[in-house]
Amino acid sequence: MSQYKYVLQEKDLPTHWYNILADMKQPPPPFRHPATLEILQPDDLMPVFPEALIKQEMSLERWIEIPHEVRDALKMWRPTPLHRAIRWEKALDTPARIYYKWEGVSPPGSHKPNTAVAQCYYGKQEGLKGFATETGAGQWGSALSFAAQMFGLECKVFMVAISYQQKPYRRIAMETWGGAVVASPSTMTKAGRDILAVDPETPGSLGMAISEAIEYAVTHDGFKYSLGSVVNFVLLHQTVVGLETREQMEMAGDYPDIIIGCAGGGSNAAGLIYPFLKDKLDGSRPQLRAIFVESTACPSMTRGIYAYDWGDTAKTGPVAMMHTVGHGFVPAPVHAGGLRYHGMAPSICALLEQGEVESRAYHQNTCFEAAVSFARAEGFIVAPETAHAVKAVYDEAVACKESGESKVILFNNSGHGHFDLAAYDAFFRKDLSDYELEEDKLRQALADLPSVPV
Amino acid sequence: MSQYKYVLQEKDLPTHWYNILADMKQPPPPFRHPATLEILQPDDLMPVFPEALIKQEMSLERWIEIPHEVRDALKMWRPTPLHRAIRWEKALDTPARIYYKWEGVSPPGSHKPNTAVAQCYYGKQEGLKGFATETGAGQWGSALSFAAQMFGLECKVFMVAISYQQKPYRRIAMETWGGAVVASPSTMTKAGRDILAVDPETPGSLGMAISEAIEYAVTHDGFKYSLGSVVNFVLLHQTVVGLETREQMEMAGDYPDIIIGCAGGGSNAAGLIYPFLKDKLDGSRPQLRAIFVESTACPSMTRGIYAYDWGDTAKTGPVAMMHTVGHGFVPAPVHAGGLRYHGMAPSICALLEQGEVESRAYHQNTCFEAAVSFARAEGFIVAPETAHAVKAVYDEAVACKESGESKVILFNNSGHGHFDLAAYDAFFRKDLSDYELEEDKLRQALADLPSVPV
Repeated sequence: MSQYKYVLQEKDLPTHWYNILADMKQPPPPFRHPATLEILQPDDLMPVFPEALIKQEMSLERWIEIPHEVRDALKMWRPTPLHRAIRWEKALDTPARIYYKWEGVSPPGSHKPNTAVAQCYYGKQEGLKGFATETGAGQWGSALSFAAQMFGLECKVFMVAISYQQKPYRRIAMETWGGAVVASPSTMTKAGRDILAVDPETPGSLGMAISEAIEYAVTHDGFKYSLGSVVNFVLLHQTVVGLETREQMEMAGDYPDIIIGCAGGGSNAAGLIYPFLKDKLDGSRPQLRAIFVESTACPSMTRGIYAYDWGDTAKTGPVAMMHTVGHGFVPAPVHAGGLRYHGMAPSICALLEQGEVESRAYHQNTCFEAAVSFARAEGFIVAPETAHAVKAVYDEAVACKESGESKVILFNNSGHGHFDLAAYDAFFRKDLSDYELEEDKLRQALADLPSVPV
Repeated sequence: MSQYKYVLQEKDLPTHWYNILADMKQPPPPFRHPATLEILQPDDLMPVFPEALIKQEMSLERWIEIPHEVRDALKMWRPTPLHRAIRWEKALDTPARIYYKWEGVSPPGSHKPNTAVAQCYYGKQEGLKGFATETGAGQWGSALSFAAQMFGLECKVFMVAISYQQKPYRRIAMETWGGAVVASPSTMTKAGRDILAVDPETPGSLGMAISEAIEYAVTHDGFKYSLGSVVNFVLLHQTVVGLETREQMEMAGDYPDIIIGCAGGGSNAAGLIYPFLKDKLDGSRPQLRAIFVESTACPSMTRGIYAYDWGDTAKTGPVAMMHTVGHGFVPAPVHAGGLRYHGMAPSICALLEQGEVESRAYHQNTCFEAAVSFARAEGFIVAPETAHAVKAVYDEAVACKESGESKVILFNNSGHGHFDLAAYDAFFRKDLSDYELEEDKLRQALADLPSVPV
């Protein structure tokens, strides 16, 4: 009889996070100060992040121990199952063997709480009162609301306006966990008021919401800022995903040829990929392919440039060396709100430059088509972001059919789409646009990059 | 370190369903024919149900083997985890040990697919083209759409009008799995047209939707009717829940003092309870308490009468001996759509009469209050139906705090509330009514019961 799932026990939960910086040929260039553009010092980040996280951000240690309390929190839903997509393989008539790590079983429904509980633990340790954060589709805001509640912290969420309107259920979920949610840009911050003065009808963007959250955090006693992707410590926390999957692939007696994840800031993809990429970096698996999949509406890796840029619209956050479409770029209102970030995690960008990983972009309609095919075979209705990974898997599985190769394809099924059903409805009604990127807009957004001193 | 979850492997999936009729002092009285009121013969059901299910409905065998193909389908998400509610226990400051079986991990998000895949398997075996069914909150329609797709069958869903309006995401989910959904009462059936002629503004009811589904099934070639609760074979299929939980409680080294489930037709509660109740019926666990929790808006067990009644509004389905508020009763539009059925599973009703199990009813506000307390401690946002079980657990846990007893409380966390967030929103806005049952309406509904020949 076929085996559909590879299931671990709580005792199998990883004890350490894996830090890929220790194994990269060259770690990503250092962050820069948003105003002076000098190399950022740990002290510069002190008003923004908990100290323990700043230390992790700068660390080059390969393995970092997961605190007892964080493992205890993760155990509420981890380890998560690894599924073999047997019925989807049959539906696609492919010789490929497809596996997916299913992160949708977490209470907030995605991989995001893996770092949220860690950040809240360190915030609580430091005596914080609460966190402010931004959220796109709402998955990160959900995760932080959930985790903050768990550690007795307050949670203030600036939610990108277009998602706030499109996904009311996400807001209600955050409120159910005790989060306080406001549509961004808002009138609560100077950054928000400035943006609204210029464009009162803006759909918002992650860059804007980050500016608001940082401003709120540094101007409110006992608050710091929390973010759900991009920076090293977030990707570090997400490696529990790949570390578990390694154990599970061993149970299945397989090893991936191709690993795929969708990438807005890059955390779910990196969380799955990095613990395997270790084998490529050390030369033991030179053929391993890793694909980060983004939206054509916000194609930082596939059409942006590799340069220093601010992480947020108001230029208040750190400046990072990354693939970017420009901190002022406002992406079209695609349903994959989590893929509407103008930059990408610096470690992923460095790996792209070093030729260790690949990137790819898709329009949204073709992603929903693949997601419906997946839902009808495997049952799970994935998030619009995750649908981008599903589409890449679909293409690779079809390529295997054509070539007759039985490749092993692994992807991160990073979250469910239960709060995104309006997007599926729009897809069925043929009411979804495949926005073409406006070249002018991109050129304009890329004209305002910082001149970083060498 | 605390253990939060008890996790089984696919090989631990039960091989047989447990049929409680084999162990009851007295099985429930037989069904009656809807027109003649004579004892129903298997042949009478042939136009309605697949033959294999009719056989199961009448069976007194204790253990019935689960076909290979059904186990294979169940393995897509089963075995489901058993959670210990450690953080909720702390939040309630109770000495009770609370466990919950988490059925929300299934693709449609509830326990319902446990029987849906079995019914679709037997339907496919018999050469059917498809099934027609009714759904309240949409959980059953989701499960059948999902399972029908898996076995290559069509699925026609009559969805209670009030839920169709309140829960658009449920409709979209059903369509994503390939189901065809229509608001009930509809103009597609004579039953629906007759009801609309009398009350064009009716919110609908499960009784009405059942009439429409049966009519659609018997008037369309290759279609039969499928239902998600009440009858013996459905409760039988749900016993995988309790059988797995027995194994998991053994892993935890505990045995329940009290087992709790919400009950509309009774299938999730019975699925968890019956395999444990076996120990009470055979005398080995005489103190075991089992509580079926219903809504005060549709209180068949707590305020209805024990009598023969039709299972549907149009009097086309079998007549069953059960606790009923009358087949014509239209419950207030509470958000727990799955608890808006006028009757209850005959086997549960017989056990109630025999004093083996208990019943209880709650208003909806107090249930949402308990569900929010649960969500803030355990993370999972439960369905409005499940919230009724959560409230009963809450009360028992508080009673333990008062008495100082460390009872073991087990409940069926039968499904997530991701498509029911509007209900939570209404609760937060203090916009939810605790409908008082109108005595006149109840008396009137109970006036039209069949006179069954003795």
